[in-house]
Amino acid sequence: MKQELIDCHERIKEYIHHTPIMESGHIEHFLGNDLYFKCENFQRAGAFKMRGATNAILQLSDEQRSKGVITHSSGNFAQALALAAKKLNVKCYIVMPHDAPYVKRNAVLMYGGEIVECAPTMESRERVCNHMIEETGATFIHASNDINVILGQGTSAKELLESQPDLDVIIVSVGGGGLLAGTILAAQNFGKPGIEVYGGEPLEADDAYRSVESGVIQCNSSTNTIADGLRTQLGDVTFPIIKEGVKQIIRVRENEIVSSMRVIWERMKIIVEPSSAVALAVLIKERPLFEGKKVGIILSGGNVDLDNLPFDN
Amino acid sequence: MKQELIDCHERIKEYIHHTPIMESGHIEHFLGNDLYFKCENFQRAGAFKMRGATNAILQLSDEQRSKGVITHSSGNFAQALALAAKKLNVKCYIVMPHDAPYVKRNAVLMYGGEIVECAPTMESRERVCNHMIEETGATFIHASNDINVILGQGTSAKELLESQPDLDVIIVSVGGGGLLAGTILAAQNFGKPGIEVYGGEPLEADDAYRSVESGVIQCNSSTNTIADGLRTQLGDVTFPIIKEGVKQIIRVRENEIVSSMRVIWERMKIIVEPSSAVALAVLIKERPLFEGKKVGIILSGGNVDLDNLPFDN
Repeated sequence: MKQELIDCHERIKEYIHHTPIMESGHIEHFLGNDLYFKCENFQRAGAFKMRGATNAILQLSDEQRSKGVITHSSGNFAQALALAAKKLNVKCYIVMPHDAPYVKRNAVLMYGGEIVECAPTMESRERVCNHMIEETGATFIHASNDINVILGQGTSAKELLESQPDLDVIIVSVGGGGLLAGTILAAQNFGKPGIEVYGGEPLEADDAYRSVESGVIQCNSSTNTIADGLRTQLGDVTFPIIKEGVKQIIRVRENEIVSSMRVIWERMKIIVEPSSAVALAVLIKERPLFEGKKVGIILSGGNVDLDNLPFDN
Repeated sequence: MKQELIDCHERIKEYIHHTPIMESGHIEHFLGNDLYFKCENFQRAGAFKMRGATNAILQLSDEQRSKGVITHSSGNFAQALALAAKKLNVKCYIVMPHDAPYVKRNAVLMYGGEIVECAPTMESRERVCNHMIEETGATFIHASNDINVILGQGTSAKELLESQPDLDVIIVSVGGGGLLAGTILAAQNFGKPGIEVYGGEPLEADDAYRSVESGVIQCNSSTNTIADGLRTQLGDVTFPIIKEGVKQIIRVRENEIVSSMRVIWERMKIIVEPSSAVALAVLIKERPLFEGKKVGIILSGGNVDLDNLPFDN
């Protein structure tokens, strides 16, 4: 996959930000690790998703592009696909429950995406989506379970490793698994021998942990987590890559997510969403595992609703 | 003052962060300006104050340093002086009202400062401070009205101009005036001919505006502003520099401060305190003044209490 990652990075380069890598003396001092944060919260549309969305659209034929792209999401991938499509002059449809929060709708509209409403059920979402595909010929792009999306997400770890080639460990959060799978591919091809990739997951939506443990893709029966980007599940493209390549998936509690988010806000003065904080929560929770190691953390995104922050208590 | 600024910068370099300069496509697009944000919120101790505090201590004799430094402040300068003193192995006393918020006390303690309590009145503050000076021989360092502090604060604009030498305008917020005076000195010596420096001030604590208008230092009878770093007043060292060098001081309302702070948080994904947001609020409020100009904004600091944010409404 080395050449595929190089080609992908070359392809998307002009449409994405080469995000900065930050360090924090405070957090390093507290944890005793040499620590590098890859700041995808500064990525266009506020999350790493812009990388995969851009790559997926760029891999379509002219014929396909002329008919547009479609996805169902009310999160960061919806915004990213809308913005990537806008930049590439491609029509973009986003299927979204009619009760989706105003801020999420608005973000998609701001980027020029067309919202197609559905009922807030899986069945309605898929029916509306399929109907739109029949009607418009738009190409469906999955938020994570698509090799072109995975390769795009992997370019974040590729950039991190180009700057810090001797990392011992990279920790990323896992929802649909696109970022984790992409990071594994990047680590295998650009990391030093023996580099380990860990996934961080909310205990409240631990399908990836259970999938890796059991060897079979598991579902979440509930997803009661503040890390709203991590409520999705692995798929048949992400799972094999993760199962083979992940060192371990570590689960963290809601209060651990919030307090790690608070540490990042207070000490690093940057805004990250709860999903981003999961990776640092893993490092704080399982400190002995990472002792003496040089660690990279990918901060996945920074889209939060400032009117609904989890700190007030 | 050119050589003094160069010497100062050289002197403090190893103790401070060379802070990054950020851009925001969103905000630029909205305002139509070429815009550069100097991120002192990423400075050590979370604000530009670390620059001046470090320079002031470094200018003391060994004899003076051995007896320590003292200031009265419950804000960013207290933290900065405590941290600068710690790094230079100098004892630091901070006179603070006994009812100062826990977070502010804690920040000083974390940096190894010794808190000396006083009653929450100007008279008590000065009495306690003078008593401590008599007892310990510590050197008093003023948060703004001190040429060594001013020179230190000016190194932020110096760094900004070294990266963007053709700025037409720099906007900074004004409280005690150390940052504004330092920025004026830096602009005069490192900016292009005709570069203009604007001060931004809360309407609720507009002593600098009234001082410049009247030609005489004015006081604030009340300081009911969310920009808690800007409640202080000009002094006899800062005022002459500001009076002579500032293009204009522009006052902004509380709601303008909060909404400009929100824009920075949401669009740039960085945490700035209300005082920082005042500079952008000026640009938004007086857009025609800055039309077609290349503008630098110094984001002064990022110390906020996450339990008391102004957004919830």
